[in-house]
Amino acid sequence: MVERQTGVALWRQIADRMRLAINNGDFDETGMMPPETVLAARFGVNRHTVRSAMATLADEGIVRAIQGVGTRIERRDRLRFPISRRTRFSQGLGNQAREIEGRMLEADTDVAPALVAQALGLAAGTPCVRMETVNSTDKRPISRATHYFPSERFAGIAEAYEKTRSITAALRELGVSDYVRRSTEISAIHAEGDDMRHLKLSPGAIILVATAINTDLAGMPIQYSRTRFAADRVKLTVEPENDDIGDLGQSA
Amino acid sequence: MVERQTGVALWRQIADRMRLAINNGDFDETGMMPPETVLAARFGVNRHTVRSAMATLADEGIVRAIQGVGTRIERRDRLRFPISRRTRFSQGLGNQAREIEGRMLEADTDVAPALVAQALGLAAGTPCVRMETVNSTDKRPISRATHYFPSERFAGIAEAYEKTRSITAALRELGVSDYVRRSTEISAIHAEGDDMRHLKLSPGAIILVATAINTDLAGMPIQYSRTRFAADRVKLTVEPENDDIGDLGQSA
Repeated sequence: MVERQTGVALWRQIADRMRLAINNGDFDETGMMPPETVLAARFGVNRHTVRSAMATLADEGIVRAIQGVGTRIERRDRLRFPISRRTRFSQGLGNQAREIEGRMLEADTDVAPALVAQALGLAAGTPCVRMETVNSTDKRPISRATHYFPSERFAGIAEAYEKTRSITAALRELGVSDYVRRSTEISAIHAEGDDMRHLKLSPGAIILVATAINTDLAGMPIQYSRTRFAADRVKLTVEPENDDIGDLGQSA
Repeated sequence: MVERQTGVALWRQIADRMRLAINNGDFDETGMMPPETVLAARFGVNRHTVRSAMATLADEGIVRAIQGVGTRIERRDRLRFPISRRTRFSQGLGNQAREIEGRMLEADTDVAPALVAQALGLAAGTPCVRMETVNSTDKRPISRATHYFPSERFAGIAEAYEKTRSITAALRELGVSDYVRRSTEISAIHAEGDDMRHLKLSPGAIILVATAINTDLAGMPIQYSRTRFAADRVKLTVEPENDDIGDLGQSA
């Protein structure tokens, strides 16, 4: 495995750049990846590196080698993750992946950071359960999240999540039958440290950060989350509820 | 002016990094920028470069030099640009800026690209007016957009925009009294070429891309836009209309 000073495998960096080129439609004319020698020249690496990068893309279901023909592009686009009043992780991804997995990295209970307490409408110093999670689709990590829940009401949330692997199901076990998204802030940064490692990103990779507040149906804030999506793998979609467009249309 | 091989002034790169550090809350404990010598050491540049970078941040209203005290941080946060069913450029930024300016770079009429025709529900080969614009707040460019309008209905849109400097006003002149956002896709990429230049970004700067479709009140698509926001200066916010949360709350 070839590595350079970044400490990250070169093939992984090349896989990231190929993924981006595919997303950008660079190879749409033929729908096939160029030959290894052409890619090696384009990215300034040797054929072994190109082969390793291509194997990664094949694992991810983005390309497929077809005997005697070449490597066909199977999937151009990033996953679409909808942001709405009813955002739910697994439901949101729907049938875009065969397998959607949530995994807990760690959990603890501590005083909420000032920004989080403010967002949740809690007095400074109120304890919260913090959960660190990673979500993957078809074995590929797509997001890394930090969640906060007021611990008075949600003391058992980490155990419920460990059991159900779903925040929606865990909240239900703790008596929240339904909840809604109050707000989401979206920004973009370069991946660093822990996020880069868990999301298997190369230095320079971009992360879409979605900072969200969920409330129960009485409007009481129940969850603050900061989810970091690998921008190479996910785009966020906003489709406002269209309930009243019809009405407006009639009045126009 | 110090420059390195990137062809971009070093002070501009340092200004970008300082802006990010301020946004990240690195200096929140004191609310003041560290002394020039400390910043010079941190960023590995000389004091002249730090001073030029700081002058840029002062121009942007992010920091302010106070005689005999030091440089105070005036504004930590990025502009908030709301994405909603009623997204309007200037209104959305509200009172976050003293001055909001829209400027046309160029306009022409041509066959719509396939993706655009599909998004607007037009037959392949239908002509559209394409408008290239830059938006600034308080003289600082924050976004660069490419807009498409079906030219049969909106032949005069470029002239109307030149006159009004507002897409909402231009659409109104052409008989669209109101419109709504059907969908927005949000992704993030590294800034390149033309966008980097118009947004005055350094190499490696991140762009938030919002691809949007607007319709008239009868649901007919009227506009396709691809807006590139400087991620260092803007974050996108999604706050679903809360009209019916009260109802849901009562039924719970």
